Amino acid sequence: MANKTIDPAELPRLLELACARNRARPARLGDWEYLRFTGHFKSLPEGTAAFGDTVIWGYPKIGRIFQLKTGLAAQLDAPFWIEEKIDGYNVRIFRHGDDILALTRRGFICPFTTDRLTDFINPAVFAEHPELVLCAEVAGPGNPYNEGSPPFIPEDVQFFVFDVMRRNQPDFLPQQDRLRLLETFGLPGVPQFGSRRLSDWEEIGALIMRLNREGREGLIFKEDSPRNRRVKYVTGNSNLSDIRVSDTSIQQLPAEYFMHRILRLVVFMEEHGIEPTPELCRELGQSLLGGALATVRQFRDHHKVFHTFRCRFRQQANAELMMQTMGQRLGAGQVRQQRLAEEGDYYLLEFTKVLPKTTGLLGHLLDGGIVFD
Amino acid sequence: MANKTIDPAELPRLLELACARNRARPARLGDWEYLRFTGHFKSLPEGTAAFGDTVIWGYPKIGRIFQLKTGLAAQLDAPFWIEEKIDGYNVRIFRHGDDILALTRRGFICPFTTDRLTDFINPAVFAEHPELVLCAEVAGPGNPYNEGSPPFIPEDVQFFVFDVMRRNQPDFLPQQDRLRLLETFGLPGVPQFGSRRLSDWEEIGALIMRLNREGREGLIFKEDSPRNRRVKYVTGNSNLSDIRVSDTSIQQLPAEYFMHRILRLVVFMEEHGIEPTPELCRELGQSLLGGALATVRQFRDHHKVFHTFRCRFRQQANAELMMQTMGQRLGAGQVRQQRLAEEGDYYLLEFTKVLPKTTGLLGHLLDGGIVFD
Repeated sequence: MANKTIDPAELPRLLELACARNRARPARLGDWEYLRFTGHFKSLPEGTAAFGDTVIWGYPKIGRIFQLKTGLAAQLDAPFWIEEKIDGYNVRIFRHGDDILALTRRGFICPFTTDRLTDFINPAVFAEHPELVLCAEVAGPGNPYNEGSPPFIPEDVQFFVFDVMRRNQPDFLPQQDRLRLLETFGLPGVPQFGSRRLSDWEEIGALIMRLNREGREGLIFKEDSPRNRRVKYVTGNSNLSDIRVSDTSIQQLPAEYFMHRILRLVVFMEEHGIEPTPELCRELGQSLLGGALATVRQFRDHHKVFHTFRCRFRQQANAELMMQTMGQRLGAGQVRQQRLAEEGDYYLLEFTKVLPKTTGLLGHLLDGGIVFD
Repeated sequence: MANKTIDPAELPRLLELACARNRARPARLGDWEYLRFTGHFKSLPEGTAAFGDTVIWGYPKIGRIFQLKTGLAAQLDAPFWIEEKIDGYNVRIFRHGDDILALTRRGFICPFTTDRLTDFINPAVFAEHPELVLCAEVAGPGNPYNEGSPPFIPEDVQFFVFDVMRRNQPDFLPQQDRLRLLETFGLPGVPQFGSRRLSDWEEIGALIMRLNREGREGLIFKEDSPRNRRVKYVTGNSNLSDIRVSDTSIQQLPAEYFMHRILRLVVFMEEHGIEPTPELCRELGQSLLGGALATVRQFRDHHKVFHTFRCRFRQQANAELMMQTMGQRLGAGQVRQQRLAEEGDYYLLEFTKVLPKTTGLLGHLLDGGIVFD
């Protein structure tokens, strides 16, 4: 990755231009005001956020390979580090004045992650290194964004730091420096599988098959080179989980969501010699039908399709900010607080998100509407 | 349907305008020259064809209901005729000079249907009524367009007339007139289930469940009224068949193809009280995985993804015209004649159609290419 720091003297003009071109927008949540990049502009990617003269670079997209052996050979040149890919949501955590904030992939301040990060991230790291930005996956059944979560997180959420950046810079800390930093401050990292080469392909194949059996999502490969290229590769079973989780939102996600996952599953099966056994076929069919039927029945009962989320907060005010930011982003009528109550050391927020497209389509169809196809 | 005949004096100007607006294009096959409507223009729908001053109206789209009971109630006012919907391709058959020609839905002359129609359609109907246009479904494993076909047609193809129009007119013959015409000339019609009302809903429900068990596609409802409104409704199993047949073309069809069918299946199950049994789930999973795996393996063996079609022709020249028109429509490299040989009273044409998108995508993925999603 090229080192493209920004000349501080150029920054105000750059941000002004990005706003004029509609690639950045002013955002406000509570007392925090910032600019959020809704698209890439010059060297700044989508999801970049600017707090005054501090820029938090957007996290780059990582390409996906569908076939392990040819994919690694075609995409990576040097030895590579192997890390687990965790099925959660991507945040960037950084210090802003006296606060430690968390940004979502799209550059929104996340009140939930911001509230909970001190449960997982030792703030001393920012006292000593105020310029650092921790890139982490937050996963678990108590998260406010995703329906699915890894099977090894039984409740609430966990944090997994997988990269470290610096303010005003796009580059990542070298692998060894990051691992040392995590160790020094006792920060939770993603599981590491060490450095390997292409010739270790059989060992990597055995590793992915183990993750597949354990219901884990997959691997990230990080080239040990100045360009620090990365690719991702997921297990066959992670596609089944994605389908299972998301068929309640059958019309919410693009249809490609499902077909791409079925294609990934099939390429995975073909490469790793997995047969379409009756059990596997039944599991796929059940994944597709089960949730979709539940959705139709939910619509019959409630005249809308929605998901219920339950998240723990340390501070009540952050739960309220969470409702506020989701109302702004999804439309006030689509997000509804069901409950906010003290429970042990936490405030438990329970809220529903309506899926407007599914709700609209099912309403049309079940009322006897027609479709031309 | 409004009666919108064309004033013959206006026709040349209308066709000229349609060509200028790029809604109609000159087409030529063998000795036949005509204009084909690639989009709708004024009162003329897509698929309309003009042979000199004779216009063959495009066959209109029929809306689909997803739910039987509410759908019939919402869409139809009067008693309605019920007919079987046959899983084939739609043609319009008419007399042009000394020839009897068949047009596809999109308005192309189909050399296969044109060649074979005298095996099924008594030409006396055109001797006596030269102005008629027979709208028919052609179905069976020996068809040149669709991979799937109804289970009750063991080989070759069959013709099923379901509507009759007149040249230069968009209207359909009234139901009784059509049935009388078919009887008079011994023409094959679609299976008829008589006239019913909304209050016959339970009987209609039992009928669709019987068709579902028999692996048949579904029903067309034709309102017995001047507006002659139609809707279609398919069985749950027809969605499974569609998925099974088309997953060899997983990236060829829009992804919505699959998701819409799964949604239809689920709404059907919910309305008719069908549970997602292990057998049904397995069948859906097998439908999705089986063909997709075969596709990946076909690509490994042949470096492309293709289907093989086998069709019987009466005349060798028509088989050659069929190859010619498909080459023009799909690109010369995509359609390849494998064999053309006399076999009994027929010439058997065997040809392959390459699926370029699937071929391109699998080539990219299996070579280790990456995708950003």
